Parts: sequence; structure tokens; C-alpha cells
Amino acid sequence: MRILLVGASGTIGSTIAKELEGEHEIIRAGRNGADVSVDHTSVESIKNMYQQVGKIDAVVNAAGGANFASLSELTPELNERGIQSKLKGQVNLVLLGLDYVNDGGSFTLTTGVMMDDPIPLGASAAMANGGVKAFVKAASIEMPRGIRINSVSPNIVQESWDRLGTFFAGFEPVPVQRVARAFKKSVVGKQTGQNFEVY
Amino acid sequence: MRILLVGASGTIGSTIAKELEGEHEIIRAGRNGADVSVDHTSVESIKNMYQQVGKIDAVVNAAGGANFASLSELTPELNERGIQSKLKGQVNLVLLGLDYVNDGGSFTLTTGVMMDDPIPLGASAAMANGGVKAFVKAASIEMPRGIRINSVSPNIVQESWDRLGTFFAGFEPVPVQRVARAFKKSVVGKQTGQNFEVY
Ligand SMILES: NC(=O)c1ccc[n+]([C@@H]2O[C@H](COP(=O)([O-])OP(=O)(O)OC[C@H]3O[C@@H](n4cnc5c(N)ncnc54)[C@H](OP(=O)(O)O)[C@@H]3O)[C@@H](O)[C@H]2O)c1
Ligand SMILES: NC(=O)c1ccc[n+]([C@@H]2O[C@H](COP(=O)([O-])OP(=O)(O)OC[C@H]3O[C@@H](n4cnc5c(N)ncnc54)[C@H](OP(=O)(O)O)[C@@H]3O)[C@@H](O)[C@H]2O)c1
Repeated sequence: MRILLVGASGTIGSTIAKELEGEHEIIRAGRNGADVSVDHTSVESIKNMYQQVGKIDAVVNAAGGANFASLSELTPELNERGIQSKLKGQVNLVLLGLDYVNDGGSFTLTTGVMMDDPIPLGASAAMANGGVKAFVKAASIEMPRGIRINSVSPNIVQESWDRLGTFFAGFEPVPVQRVARAFKKSVVGKQTGQNFEVY
Repeated sequence: MRILLVGASGTIGSTIAKELEGEHEIIRAGRNGADVSVDHTSVESIKNMYQQVGKIDAVVNAAGGANFASLSELTPELNERGIQSKLKGQVNLVLLGLDYVNDGGSFTLTTGVMMDDPIPLGASAAMANGGVKAFVKAASIEMPRGIRINSVSPNIVQESWDRLGTFFAGFEPVPVQRVARAFKKSVVGKQTGQNFEVY
């Protein structure tokens, strides 16, 4: 398969690449993407990426940010990053990518444990995750040409613990490899409309 | 209690008003609100409303739109209505309203069955609903001063069946009165972080 991987250089994205590159062609994307550059907060940039890349069998997204802020400090403006990146960035990769994905292909997006097991400072990210999860479930019933769509919901991963662990007190971090395997299940398997929880 | 009801003139909002007005003071809001006018897609307009209304014990929102479009026809631009109204409109009512809600008060937002039982043309609304549900759950753990937050997820209501029934083939519509009672449970009761399903 020819797989477009947005966020390929990240902690999760680079592990997904390792999991898939033995048997598939990986096109690595990101703002500083090795193969193609994209800023998924820009509709124009997403369109340009797809035009450069052409037809693919799968789109995998492991990119998306949101601001951490306590609810009392969260403003509409701070919340906007989660809206633009984690939510719309991912949804727009689907809406603008449909015509580039071959029959029977797939989209796999990223959500996260914070929507199910909330943490302080996490309301904006949880909001975006919940939006993506519901979009995936609803979009799956209308996908044309046998195209599938799923999301993967990672717990905090061991490899990000030094950077993020203080936000996730009491959580049991999972190996990033387990998260990458859930992406593989989505891309190579046949399920659709799922949110694969790696908790 | 002094209750600010956004969307008070709507099918659901007017029934919520009837359910609560016997024992509480209702401040009716909407673009053409009887007591105060607000367009919840505008941050400035929400701020003006709260300044006019002052301190309240509860904020109830029964307003929020999204475009119906098949996934293949859904563009980032069409999806924007759901983002601006159903999602950000509701989230911003909370972010900008926190300081106006008295200790022990509450917010109650509206989601909907489409995120759980998806229908054709419904991906944008489902996305917004899912975002609101996850926001409510995460925000509830950080609410200051004992303030609570819930959402109500209505099934299609009988009173909207003539207008919307064709979108909801095979659904069993519920009386709008049942939906209004779930709002009452949120406002008068003590639960928080819940999405009350009226299915
Ligand atoms: N790490 C965890 O424990 C964890 C747990 C749950 C969920 N998640 C979610 O999983 C996703 C990936 O997490 P991660 O820890 O692997 O992130 P990361 O290491 O920070 O990597 C982020 C990746 O996304 C790319 N990227 C960032 N902004 C972008 C944009 N605007 N447009 C396109 N690409 C962009 C980055 O490349 P460039 O810099 O070149 O753009 C990079 O490849 C995020 O959505 C995160 O919230 C992570
Ligand atoms: N009806 C159903 O069966 C059903 C089922 C599930 C979920 N829902 C959801 O429940 C909510 C209410 O539904 P409904 O059928 O009662 O709607 P409705 O009858 O169309 O009423 C909408 C209400 O919202 C107000 N409104 C509209 N746009 C607004 C804006 N930008 N800012 C502030 N207020 C605005 C309207 O007043 P103005 O015109 O004066 O602004 C009106 O009071 C919606 O989010 C809907 O998606 C409805």
C-alpha cells in the first residue's frame, strides 16, 4: 500500500512508520515533512499536499495540538488551537482527501485518553478528541467506494512520560509500540467507524 | 433560581421554559430573545449578553446549528457552521460565563443522538455533539466554586418529526417534554459531568 503519514516525525508517527515501512510505501508529511510538507491547520496547505502526493491507499494522521489550560484560564482564543489543529486539522484531512484515496482505502485519525478519563488542564484537548471520535463514527457510514475510517485513542505513552507525565498523575503509560499496532490494525484490517482504545 | 436560557423560543427551549418557569425566573435569550439578544457564534455578543444579564444560578443552552450534508459534499466551509454554532457557540457560553454563575450553579448544554446512532448527512452535527460531550465531561472536574456542568442528548423529538423525520428513518421520536425534564434534572439536581441521553 501507498500510505500518507501526517506527523511522521513524531513520537507516535515515527513508530507507526517503523511498524508499516517493511511492507508498505510510507510518504512522510508534517510541517517539516521528509517527503511532503503540510500544515494541517491550513485548508490550502492540505490541498497542496494531496495534489503533490496523488493517489494513496491510506491516510494516517498522528499530528494535532491543543493548549493545556485550567478551565478558569481557558479562553475562546486559547481553545482555538485545539479547534484548528486537533479537530479541524484532522477532519479536513478527510474532507479534502476523499478523492485521493483509492477504493477500499482508509483514513486513521488520532484521539486520546483524555476524553474518557479527564485530567486537569485537558478540557480543550478532550473537546477536540470527542469531536474527532464522533466524526469518525458518523462519517464511516457514508464513506464512498468502500473507504474506511477509524481513530486510535492512545493513553499517555511511556516515551512521552518525561515530557507529559506530570499532567497524567496516576495513569499507567503504555508502550508507543502498542499504539502503533492499533494504527496498523486500522490500516491493514477491515474494521470501520471504530475508536481503538490503547489504554 | 435565576436561569439564563439561550434558545428559549425553540421547540426544545420553549418546553424547557415551561418546565422551569413555575418555580424559577427565566431569562429568555436568542438572536431575537424576548429578554436579551445573543448570537452565540460571536464572542462579543456572548460577552454583551452576560454583562446585561449579570449574576445567574444556571445557564441552559438549547441553541446550536450544523449543516446537513453527505460526507462527499461536506466541505471545510460547510462544516464551519457546526464548529461555530453547535460546538464553539456552546463551549464559549461556558468559558465566558463562568464568572457570572453563582457558587453551586450550573451549565447545561445540548448534544444529540446523532453522535451515538449516526444518520446519513449527519457527520458535521455528530462531530460537534461529540466535542460538546467530551468538553462537558472534562470541564466538570475543573469547575470552580461547586459549579456543575452537564449536557442533554435528545433523540429526535415528536414535535420536530414533520420537519426532520425524513433524516431519522426508523428512529423512535421522543416527546419534547421528556427532553425538557432531563434539562430540569441537570439544573435542579446535583449530578455533574453527565450527558443525559433521552433516547
Ligand atoms: N504522546 C502521547 O503520549 C499521546 C497520547 C495521546 C494522544 N496523543 C496525540 O497523538 C498525536 C501525536 O502525538 P506525539 O506525541 O507523537 O506528537 P509529537 O511527537 O509532538 O509529533 C507531532 C508530529 O506532528 C507534526 N505536526 C505538528 N503540527 C503539525 C501541523 N500543524 N501540521 C502537520 N503536522 C504537524 C510534527 O511534525 P512537524 O513539526 O514537522 O510539523 C510531528 O511529526 C497528537 O495529536 C497527540 O495529542 C499523544
Ligand atoms: N428538535 C430535535 O428533535 C432535536 C433533536 C436532537 C438535538 N436537537 C438540538 O437541540 C437544539 C435545539 O433544537 P430545536 O429543535 O429546539 O431548535 P429550534 O426550534 O430551531 O430553536 C432554536 C433556538 O435557538 C435560537 N438560536 C438559533 N441560532 C442562534 C444563535 N446563533 N445564537 C443564539 N440563539 C440562537 C433560536 O432563537 P433565535 O432565532 O431568536 O436566535 C431558537 O430559540 C439544537 O442544537 C438541535 O440541534 C434537536
